[in-house]
Amino acid sequence: MATVPLLGDAELAPEARAVFEDIRAVRGTDYVNNFWRALAHDPAELRRVWEEVKAVMAPGALDPLVKELVYIAVSTANACPYCVHSHTASARAKGMTEAQHAELLRVIGLAARTNHLVTALQVPVDEVFDRGG
Amino acid sequence: MATVPLLGDAELAPEARAVFEDIRAVRGTDYVNNFWRALAHDPAELRRVWEEVKAVMAPGALDPLVKELVYIAVSTANACPYCVHSHTASARAKGMTEAQHAELLRVIGLAARTNHLVTALQVPVDEVFDRGG
Amino acid sequence: MATVPLLGDAELAPEARAVFEDIRAVRGTDYVNNFWRALAHDPAELRRVWEEVKAVMAPGALDPLVKELVYIAVSTANACPYCVHSHTASARAKGMTEAQHAELLRVIGLAARTNHLVTALQVPVDEVFDRGG
Amino acid sequence: MATVPLLGDAELAPEARAVFEDIRAVRGTDYVNNFWRALAHDPAELRRVWEEVKAVMAPGALDPLVKELVYIAVSTANACPYCVHSHTASARAKGMTEAQHAELLRVIGLAARTNHLVTALQVPVDEVFDRGG
Amino acid sequence: MATVPLLGDAELAPEARAVFEDIRAVRGTDYVNNFWRALAHDPAELRRVWEEVKAVMAPGALDPLVKELVYIAVSTANACPYCVHSHTASARAKGMTEAQHAELLRVIGLAARTNHLVTALQVPVDEVFDRGG
Amino acid sequence: MATVPLLGDAELAPEARAVFEDIRAVRGTDYVNNFWRALAHDPAELRRVWEEVKAVMAPGALDPLVKELVYIAVSTANACPYCVHSHTASARAKGMTEAQHAELLRVIGLAARTNHLVTALQVPVDEVFDRGG
Repeated sequence: MATVPLLGDAELAPEARAVFEDIRAVRGTDYVNNFWRALAHDPAELRRVWEEVKAVMAPGALDPLVKELVYIAVSTANACPYCVHSHTASARAKGMTEAQHAELLRVIGLAARTNHLVTALQVPVDEVFDRGG
Repeated sequence: MATVPLLGDAELAPEARAVFEDIRAVRGTDYVNNFWRALAHDPAELRRVWEEVKAVMAPGALDPLVKELVYIAVSTANACPYCVHSHTASARAKGMTEAQHAELLRVIGLAARTNHLVTALQVPVDEVFDRGG
Repeated sequence: MATVPLLGDAELAPEARAVFEDIRAVRGTDYVNNFWRALAHDPAELRRVWEEVKAVMAPGALDPLVKELVYIAVSTANACPYCVHSHTASARAKGMTEAQHAELLRVIGLAARTNHLVTALQVPVDEVFDRGG
Repeated sequence: MATVPLLGDAELAPEARAVFEDIRAVRGTDYVNNFWRALAHDPAELRRVWEEVKAVMAPGALDPLVKELVYIAVSTANACPYCVHSHTASARAKGMTEAQHAELLRVIGLAARTNHLVTALQVPVDEVFDRGG
Repeated sequence: MATVPLLGDAELAPEARAVFEDIRAVRGTDYVNNFWRALAHDPAELRRVWEEVKAVMAPGALDPLVKELVYIAVSTANACPYCVHSHTASARAKGMTEAQHAELLRVIGLAARTNHLVTALQVPVDEVFDRGG
Repeated sequence: MATVPLLGDAELAPEARAVFEDIRAVRGTDYVNNFWRALAHDPAELRRVWEEVKAVMAPGALDPLVKELVYIAVSTANACPYCVHSHTASARAKGMTEAQHAELLRVIGLAARTNHLVTALQVPVDEVFDRGG
């Protein structure tokens, strides 16, 4: 259960409907997942988030698959089950192999381990890491 | 300040000294950063963490630079300043460009935003994301 | 499933029973939600938490509804599904409109985004923010 | 120290310069804080974040001060020192009294406490909290 | 549902099968819980994690039950429902009483409360806490 | 720097002064650390937190040192540097040896690693962990 009802296509305000059409066109599928149906109660936020997704997840200096791996990593550390599921599915749709998935999880697990060790030890930052600022 | 003194080379137990030598050999530099000097109070843990770092961060199904990007992402979500600094430096040493760094941060910021929206909305997982289990 | 059985009214120790009666009296409803039924195994903690809830969530310098919005925000960032549900329900009971809920989520999403950007950038605190200490 | 150099006004790309001018105009002050100077390395992201800040933090169904309180709450739970400092300063600039600040912290502390109790107890969500979905 | 299928005994690769046999031998039970069945897709990681569990959770300077209490505490703060359940069960199997469980939760709740207060207040570290480094 | 000035003894309101006297009496030292000096702006909250600390951290079903170890664990996962420092100091004052500190960090690191693996794998809870509820 969600904290708001998920909106069906017939319940969308015009601005939300337009965003859904763009999601379908860009993704090449009629399926619109639950995140957008929950967010559709706030068409202005729906549009801002979708525009940001399009701008940020597009090919650029990083490969779209790499971006999905980073997304899974952040979603895991933020303890978001839905986000882990949806972006693991997205990563697979963009070609993530099982071997890549397994390696991703190794790195996430190692990072979590050393993050906690560093925090418990309160290690001071080395001067050599300095980039200015 | 750390919760334990950072150990200088002359203060290392033999097992810790052996790990430091391996760190220097594998990395091709005499510099050993503060994390290892804090961890060196527990030579067995020092060895386990270093062995895991070598096994997990080596080239494999994912590129070593991609692994550093994932490491930065996890370290950011876990709010670990030292880890962010050290792995940003590592990523640069492995070739991360400023454009890649900027794109990484865009993805991290977007993921954090949608993670929180999803959690506040408590969006139920779509059936189509199911992989079994 | 919980890590302890939820206690029914007939299973309460006397001190827990007294707290339940106060919860019912203060809230004006016979319904006692699952959080208190799980916490009731430890009547002393049950009482401390309930007394703190009464003291902290009462009207004061901040409006009770504003306090519920803050509660949702913290619960979201701490990734607590039960807490998000229960305090979203409480906020609605205290008059939160759908428009206010939507705005709350926008702010939570934005804050999460900039929190992560700031951590990844390790931005130093401006002198002008200083209040002493 | 930051993971990127903070940019001075003379180092800004034209698009970043335009955003800085808008920040100054909207806020009515010449001072631009460090977050924007770090983000200015990525003018497109700088613009997106600033546009989102303007859209989300403007008066609406929630009072601008309430939004700052929510921002402090999220920043605290996400353990972002810079964000806590900058938004505490913003809240004060928008009229937050010391009594309001104190009450805010009480609510944040209580929420954190019950968030952790609920997670350790794994309390199941009450049916009465359901809103559909 | 998991992001990978849980592997049954008949689906294990030889290296994973060997780890499962060791898990059964060390624990003195035929039951292997879902975590290991999900991790079994990556036999090398399965082995590393299991070897770490054996090394770290064995009796030493801290009692095995104390280690389980610490594990529950970390799992709670990291918002991991499965981990809370599995380590609460492990703690009970190692003799945790209901009174100990209740006290553990009190401490976790108090720590969460003061953690958030400290972060919102940005309290500077006292010189007297210094241990060198 | 803190978000509020730290209060010196001469700046305390009468209710805060009484709490400080109790802190000194209970701890047997004249030193009052910065957390209480920041919290002293809100004497009612100061008193509630101090009363909770006394009630929760006293000897009971768990040893006071074990409680400090749990406190360090939660503070680490919540990324609170001040809390890590102050409770590591408290644990040492209560007799924590360096070997115990090292073992504590091993457990924290392992828990963080498996917490993240479980979240990324979204492992379903085993029926055998069920306790009712």
